[in-house]
Amino acid sequence: MDILDIIAKKRDKGTLSRDEIHFFIKNYVDGSIKDYQASALLMAIYLNGMNNEEISILTDEMMHSGEVMNLDSIEGIKVDKHSTGGVGDKVSLILGPMIASAGAKLAKMSGRGLGHTGGTLDKLESIPGMRINLSKNEFIQQVKKIGISIIGQNSKLVPADKKIYALRDVTSTIGSIPLIASSVMSKKLASGSDAILLDVKYGSGAFMKDIDSAKELARTMVNIGKHLNKDVKAEVTPMDQPLGLAVGNNLEIKEVIATLKGNGPKDLFELCIDSGAIMLMQAKITKTKEEGVKILQENVKNGKAFDKFVEFVSAQGGDVSYILDPSKFEMAKNIVPIYSKKSGYINRIDAMTIGISSMRLGGGRETLDDVIDMSAGIVLNKKLGDEVRENELLCTIYTNRKENDYMPIIENVYNSFKIDENLIYKKEEHILIE
Amino acid sequence: MDILDIIAKKRDKGTLSRDEIHFFIKNYVDGSIKDYQASALLMAIYLNGMNNEEISILTDEMMHSGEVMNLDSIEGIKVDKHSTGGVGDKVSLILGPMIASAGAKLAKMSGRGLGHTGGTLDKLESIPGMRINLSKNEFIQQVKKIGISIIGQNSKLVPADKKIYALRDVTSTIGSIPLIASSVMSKKLASGSDAILLDVKYGSGAFMKDIDSAKELARTMVNIGKHLNKDVKAEVTPMDQPLGLAVGNNLEIKEVIATLKGNGPKDLFELCIDSGAIMLMQAKITKTKEEGVKILQENVKNGKAFDKFVEFVSAQGGDVSYILDPSKFEMAKNIVPIYSKKSGYINRIDAMTIGISSMRLGGGRETLDDVIDMSAGIVLNKKLGDEVRENELLCTIYTNRKENDYMPIIENVYNSFKIDENLIYKKEEHILIE
Repeated sequence: MDILDIIAKKRDKGTLSRDEIHFFIKNYVDGSIKDYQASALLMAIYLNGMNNEEISILTDEMMHSGEVMNLDSIEGIKVDKHSTGGVGDKVSLILGPMIASAGAKLAKMSGRGLGHTGGTLDKLESIPGMRINLSKNEFIQQVKKIGISIIGQNSKLVPADKKIYALRDVTSTIGSIPLIASSVMSKKLASGSDAILLDVKYGSGAFMKDIDSAKELARTMVNIGKHLNKDVKAEVTPMDQPLGLAVGNNLEIKEVIATLKGNGPKDLFELCIDSGAIMLMQAKITKTKEEGVKILQENVKNGKAFDKFVEFVSAQGGDVSYILDPSKFEMAKNIVPIYSKKSGYINRIDAMTIGISSMRLGGGRETLDDVIDMSAGIVLNKKLGDEVRENELLCTIYTNRKENDYMPIIENVYNSFKIDENLIYKKEEHILIE
Repeated sequence: MDILDIIAKKRDKGTLSRDEIHFFIKNYVDGSIKDYQASALLMAIYLNGMNNEEISILTDEMMHSGEVMNLDSIEGIKVDKHSTGGVGDKVSLILGPMIASAGAKLAKMSGRGLGHTGGTLDKLESIPGMRINLSKNEFIQQVKKIGISIIGQNSKLVPADKKIYALRDVTSTIGSIPLIASSVMSKKLASGSDAILLDVKYGSGAFMKDIDSAKELARTMVNIGKHLNKDVKAEVTPMDQPLGLAVGNNLEIKEVIATLKGNGPKDLFELCIDSGAIMLMQAKITKTKEEGVKILQENVKNGKAFDKFVEFVSAQGGDVSYILDPSKFEMAKNIVPIYSKKSGYINRIDAMTIGISSMRLGGGRETLDDVIDMSAGIVLNKKLGDEVRENELLCTIYTNRKENDYMPIIENVYNSFKIDENLIYKKEEHILIE
């Protein structure tokens, strides 16, 4: 078999066989297929696509390019959650303790943030002492004991994805549905859970800009699950504004705590309950969604969900005193309110600009080597559809940067709000693909 | 400017600007754009194409990536010839002396053979003593003095093409008309001639398999000439069988000598006269094609064309005694006739198989490091449309390889002839694109 024939086949709109895909993954990971050959093939895949069977085989071969986690020693159905990422997306950190408090088993591996999106691991690390590098055994024992653990991805998992993703990043081949789907799913499947709920975001703050491509990506990933005999469902949800009010690491953890206590923003709370109820069905703990919604709402009210979060933080070495008294979290030196210059309705919030601004205030990474300021970020006071009066608070920025550095960012943040005389904004619905 | 944006633009079917193409060529040649980025761009160009202006700019930028020959000190219009290559194509070696004998100036840089195609330089080197690495000054002085010189390409010319061609070869991006056209034309234009005649081959022994893609390539290259103010014409000619009768280095030189003396195969002689007459018009030596045909036919009859070849060989250090007495050329140890097993008409000769077989008999290179056996090859006795009787000679193979090695090749060579009861073959016409 020759990589030149495989490239030529995809170049000419052919369908790659399992043997050909296996040959590519195996030999690219071991270095005998060169980067310049892989990038030619990736561009051909980007432009000519792959059918569902090819994508499933690609996912399977990527997943088996390294270690695959074995969670069999944990009793029951292990569920996992993945969001394609957005601005202010702290759903896993709320929904995880919620469903664990209802008896589900969440053994989750997460990633770090880059660019406009934050990462679950970074948010967790804003809790002093929190360990995200548990051993395989510690990870499994914790899920057995308390039903939840969230750690960094094991470096031995899916080496093919690491190599392919790094190459896509420098060859303009990121935005391809077969390549995104196989990247996400190979990692999720290699983490060993039995059932996966995906949250595919679309809109200004997401990688998928429109609902149609988000639906296509969701369908593609659900199909991979079908081909590989895993229970995979996907929600398609808007990322037309930051999720909740807080953007930035310890600011978001404070919002997680508030939401688990029943005091969180409505959109965030509803999404967590909604996704959590689907996962409880996937875990076969409930038979209907309504049943799950009821249990989860109850567990917030009676404090079980919050207690599970405290238990989770404590199990991974985090300082629980911060969770019990969030005022202990480090505060940024500069806290600057931004006021509306006119009255009207908020018809647009540019989530991408908010995400990038938070990064520039110190709350995110421009490159993988940047160090994050855990206290930096933005907290909204108004969201889409809200009425606002002149001089009313729109949002607040938190930063340790100097005035000269953050002043232009304030301008950008203000401009990311579109305020009109009339209300145009309509809430977009969630779609479930299964 | 960022190579990622350039790749993304072509990936999304955009038109690249001169600045973008310049940025790519300059930075790829100096190494700051990586091979894996260039190969992604080349695949995007392969699949999404380029318009005529982009192709001309690409050619221009490639041409100016290194030295450009200055032939201004040679008086008159300098003409050049390029064939896209085929099996038994020794046209330049015949036509060159022919037109030089009529007063044209041919300053030609040629290449080596690889795979099924032979190279003009290799053929020349089968003449003992022949030097193909003249200095720039020697080259120019020789053209001034005798009107013709053929040498190897100066290594300082078109470094961009060397790098891009090598990358295309290992990434399945060879067969793209914008990339082929810019590669050929950047080299031809950098060699400094004023007028160029291209011979674009199509058929079983050529890179272009069908006439339509050959016409498209020809039109593309003629268009590059128009954009860059050079007189470029292109003939589209069939390579449905080897050109002439001889395939293999010194076997072809013997055929060159015979043809210059008026004793060559008809198809070869006619193509040389035809192309030569077009080049005499490009050189503004004649006004009509008929005029040129007449002069060239005359110069073969009166010996001027042959004498010019002798002068050319002598000027580049070749041993003229071989030209005057071709029986001096080294003969292969094994000369094996192949006879027809049935009577009928020859409707097909697989030129590619003949080319590959000649290579395997020792007459060509499988890889660039192979050493050529100058005496190896195949001489046909029958061509397309000929009648053949059972046990009549079809062709003869020449080789120094052992019997065990050449016996399977004989089988292949025999099977490359298709002999039927009825004559189906029709001669295909030449097309001139200008």
